[in-house]
Amino acid sequence: MTDTNEAPQIADMINGMMEKTIPVVHGMGVEATVARRGYASSTVPMEGNGNHFGVMYAGVLFTVAEVLGGALAIASFDAAAYYPLVKDLKISFRRPATTDVTAEASLDDAELDRITAAAAANGKCDFTLEATVTDANGVVVATTTGLYQLRAHGK
Amino acid sequence: MTDTNEAPQIADMINGMMEKTIPVVHGMGVEATVARRGYASSTVPMEGNGNHFGVMYAGVLFTVAEVLGGALAIASFDAAAYYPLVKDLKISFRRPATTDVTAEASLDDAELDRITAAAAANGKCDFTLEATVTDANGVVVATTTGLYQLRAHGK
Repeated sequence: MTDTNEAPQIADMINGMMEKTIPVVHGMGVEATVARRGYASSTVPMEGNGNHFGVMYAGVLFTVAEVLGGALAIASFDAAAYYPLVKDLKISFRRPATTDVTAEASLDDAELDRITAAAAANGKCDFTLEATVTDANGVVVATTTGLYQLRAHGK
Repeated sequence: MTDTNEAPQIADMINGMMEKTIPVVHGMGVEATVARRGYASSTVPMEGNGNHFGVMYAGVLFTVAEVLGGALAIASFDAAAYYPLVKDLKISFRRPATTDVTAEASLDDAELDRITAAAAANGKCDFTLEATVTDANGVVVATTTGLYQLRAHGK
């Protein structure tokens, strides 16, 4: 599971974990599509997730972006030693989403190395992840900035 | 429906509306408990909303707080003329939530009057709403700052 070339397998593992352990997220239809070292993407369907304006509900856009912090961390760091948690997250709603959407986030090698080293030294490390949520026409419907923490199990 | 003394009736109306029009929110068990001029509260149960840490999923805490912008606006302004939308929202996760939670938000009379006047003059008005999410033991588990807009129908 630490072979970060196995992106589809990691995404499958994350989806299996979400289905079992975050039923409300699975219930929305949120799925990880890619999860590899430094990059994660996810999707959620429009169907069942609309609000009274006929657009995707804000909390669904939050969720499809927020899960990237976990997916990227699981694919980038030693999941046997560390787990991710979210400390705060700001979401800006740019345009109404009326189709299925995709969320993407990435961290560069230098940031991954910094997090890995700091977590090894201190048992935890905060990191910021910016995500972009795009509709089926390529329009950015929301952007997020999340503060996550990678933390050693048992800390 | 503009009698803001009828707080339970307004909350009932909002819950009926959420059930029909935001099924994903209703599916979480999010309910408005009070909605009157300048004040709204909501709840969501722990059951079905946990994550892999055994605490309430971040997106559920987002949702129980976010809906207050709509509930408060419907109870405070002329719902026949205006509707609320959320532009951005920041949520800070203070403590893990392991029980049902309650969210609360309020606006004072001066701010309500400002919004009412500006919306009448311009057809729309932005407003900031801060919400607090508290667990069954009175511990603050999350706080939010949301930027909403009251907008005239058809604008």
